[in-house]
Amino acid sequence: MRQSQLFTKTFKDSPKDEVTINAQLLLRAGFINKELAGVYSYLPLGLRVLNKICNIIREEINTIGGQEVFLTSLQSQELWEKTDRWSDEVVDNWFKTELKNKTVLGLAFTAEEPLTAIMKNHIKSYKDLPVYAYQIQTKFRNELRAKSGIMRAREFLMKDLYSFSRSQEEHEQFYEKSKEAYLKIFERCGLGSQTYLTFSSGGVFSKYSHEFQTLTNAGEDTIFVDKNKKIAINKEVYNDEVLNSLGLKKAELVEEKAVEVGNIFTLGTKFSEPLGLKFTDENGKQQTVIMGCYGIGPGRVMGTIVEIYHDEKGIIWPEAVAPFQIHLISLCKDENDKKKADEIYNNLIKQNIEVLYDDRDASAGQKFADSDLIGIPIRYIVSSKTLEQGSVEVKNRKSGKVEMVEITKFFSVN
Amino acid sequence: MRQSQLFTKTFKDSPKDEVTINAQLLLRAGFINKELAGVYSYLPLGLRVLNKICNIIREEINTIGGQEVFLTSLQSQELWEKTDRWSDEVVDNWFKTELKNKTVLGLAFTAEEPLTAIMKNHIKSYKDLPVYAYQIQTKFRNELRAKSGIMRAREFLMKDLYSFSRSQEEHEQFYEKSKEAYLKIFERCGLGSQTYLTFSSGGVFSKYSHEFQTLTNAGEDTIFVDKNKKIAINKEVYNDEVLNSLGLKKAELVEEKAVEVGNIFTLGTKFSEPLGLKFTDENGKQQTVIMGCYGIGPGRVMGTIVEIYHDEKGIIWPEAVAPFQIHLISLCKDENDKKKADEIYNNLIKQNIEVLYDDRDASAGQKFADSDLIGIPIRYIVSSKTLEQGSVEVKNRKSGKVEMVEITKFFSVN
Repeated sequence: MRQSQLFTKTFKDSPKDEVTINAQLLLRAGFINKELAGVYSYLPLGLRVLNKICNIIREEINTIGGQEVFLTSLQSQELWEKTDRWSDEVVDNWFKTELKNKTVLGLAFTAEEPLTAIMKNHIKSYKDLPVYAYQIQTKFRNELRAKSGIMRAREFLMKDLYSFSRSQEEHEQFYEKSKEAYLKIFERCGLGSQTYLTFSSGGVFSKYSHEFQTLTNAGEDTIFVDKNKKIAINKEVYNDEVLNSLGLKKAELVEEKAVEVGNIFTLGTKFSEPLGLKFTDENGKQQTVIMGCYGIGPGRVMGTIVEIYHDEKGIIWPEAVAPFQIHLISLCKDENDKKKADEIYNNLIKQNIEVLYDDRDASAGQKFADSDLIGIPIRYIVSSKTLEQGSVEVKNRKSGKVEMVEITKFFSVN
Repeated sequence: MRQSQLFTKTFKDSPKDEVTINAQLLLRAGFINKELAGVYSYLPLGLRVLNKICNIIREEINTIGGQEVFLTSLQSQELWEKTDRWSDEVVDNWFKTELKNKTVLGLAFTAEEPLTAIMKNHIKSYKDLPVYAYQIQTKFRNELRAKSGIMRAREFLMKDLYSFSRSQEEHEQFYEKSKEAYLKIFERCGLGSQTYLTFSSGGVFSKYSHEFQTLTNAGEDTIFVDKNKKIAINKEVYNDEVLNSLGLKKAELVEEKAVEVGNIFTLGTKFSEPLGLKFTDENGKQQTVIMGCYGIGPGRVMGTIVEIYHDEKGIIWPEAVAPFQIHLISLCKDENDKKKADEIYNNLIKQNIEVLYDDRDASAGQKFADSDLIGIPIRYIVSSKTLEQGSVEVKNRKSGKVEMVEITKFFSVN
């Protein structure tokens, strides 16, 4: 894309009430727009990153058998009363609204209830199971405070996956698969080395749930990390009994701040029982479906990446989630040189390389500052000087390493 | 995808309160789920169709320079009061909700206000214009009645594009381009021959707006169509003066029921003026930005397609929006034959053909009935009989035409 066409600009400052690095840098670089506290719109560069994260998630969840759906935000009181999650005294972060006839509706903060109700129409027999269904859809949570930028928003995209299994054993097989898929997702998003499978409090149906916690001082959680074993314990279950049961030693654990980028939870029959999701087993007996839920917030992942990958000049995107692969910057003034820069751009595009092409009429200083702030991992600089040598200057945003590369290398063979 | 894995089933009946063909067939075929009146979730087959429609829209809007964004649903009172569109007396289909501190928020039914506010941060000079920004995002409309299935929902995806231009002339150039893009979109979705550019009431800044009306008895609008000139007039502006100004003759017009699948509207400075979206022109003078808005509801397009393309047995999807390209139905009982059917499936998949493979343990009658209902345009039937002839029976869902095709034709060359 030509940067002269991109409608967003960069800013020297961010609003004073934004205290997190992720919100400050993403606002300054024009990736997002703040609508209200905890409510952010995604602008073209930001949406590109968000979509890349969503597609990584989609690929890995499809690989373990996930079927994508798209449920609604509007929710009925009747349905959520069956699981005792309608009342604001039980669930304190509902947004509620109402129809013209005064019927009160909720805005979904999760989707166990509606999806379980849907499955009642489609699951009758053991032959219809297991089922894994997920969506990447907007969730609403009426947070009292929202000060963490896009890491804790009042309206945000969530990938929520739900498993429906015949038995605890079948559930556990998928639960283990989901762990691997999650670790792959965070690895592919560039958070692999900072993200720990973390034991957290479970429920009636499991001793623990599991969180995926990424180390960063911007995180709201405290975890105790065993860096050799690559696992961690959430502070809320950090006690001698748990340490013993997991074979961990206090001396080998380090206390760290972290952000929960994902979680997986065994639900057992918590929702299938009150909602009546049953199936006929191989012996003709009625059984209750065993469920699990598996969440990731793509926006939170994006915010976490910024918290970890930045320097004083701006963002440094990992390749797989960068808005573009290459930032091509033209410093050419001469018409002939400009044509050559255009040619390089067109050739890269032909090779299906995602290029942001800074063809603007702006100073080199402005272009470099914007480029550092936006944070595309590889920068190509074309100027009359580089063209004289038949070359392009290639700079790595992260390492700062610079090398001259012959232009012919960027041209496709045909 | 193997149909034995697809979690949705088909149904003989649809809920009695569903009076439209689109809701009845889509519910029976398992494409959607009804949450509440006018509130539908999309299940795997339905989401595949919806995504295909969205991608056709995306491609055509990108081609005319659209930049995709993703704005929020939650909206502030302060912003919408500036354009006098906050009060429920002025806009009667708001859904409202509130924060913990009792601040009332709205759920966006459109996005002129928030996008214009965003543009104030990014547009300063004539050099920053024109800009075309769009999103494909959920809208909420508190309809008093919702009886048209997914053709008029209370919560629905909308592609809303907004143009920001320096002058009326520049605006009109884009407005004409958008007409062409819209006609291409409906053509690609299979609605080309039934869809008419329709003159409708304008506003302060233009004599007319334009609707794209698709002929169907399920439509809520009445239009007068000139089938030769391929244009129409909405009943609301059907009078002698308008007929004269458009050079149309009453005798050549036919009254038809139609559904508005898209609309384009000249906004002038209706929003940019109260919200203060100005730019400095080439002479250093402050000017107000000229705007236009351009909407399409992908769900409504999907519902309209079903209204038009169905028979008594079910849906007949146009190729470009079908959930799968081919429905491969195995009637094989013998293990060896089943393996051959699997081989055909795997070979089609290798060629990147989208195949729904009915590998279920069900009767031929059930499989054919489901296939007719689901409506994939091409059906391949594999049975011991066809395999004996080294062939597959290929049936066209629309024409009913059947031919035997040699299996070798379906295998990729390498």
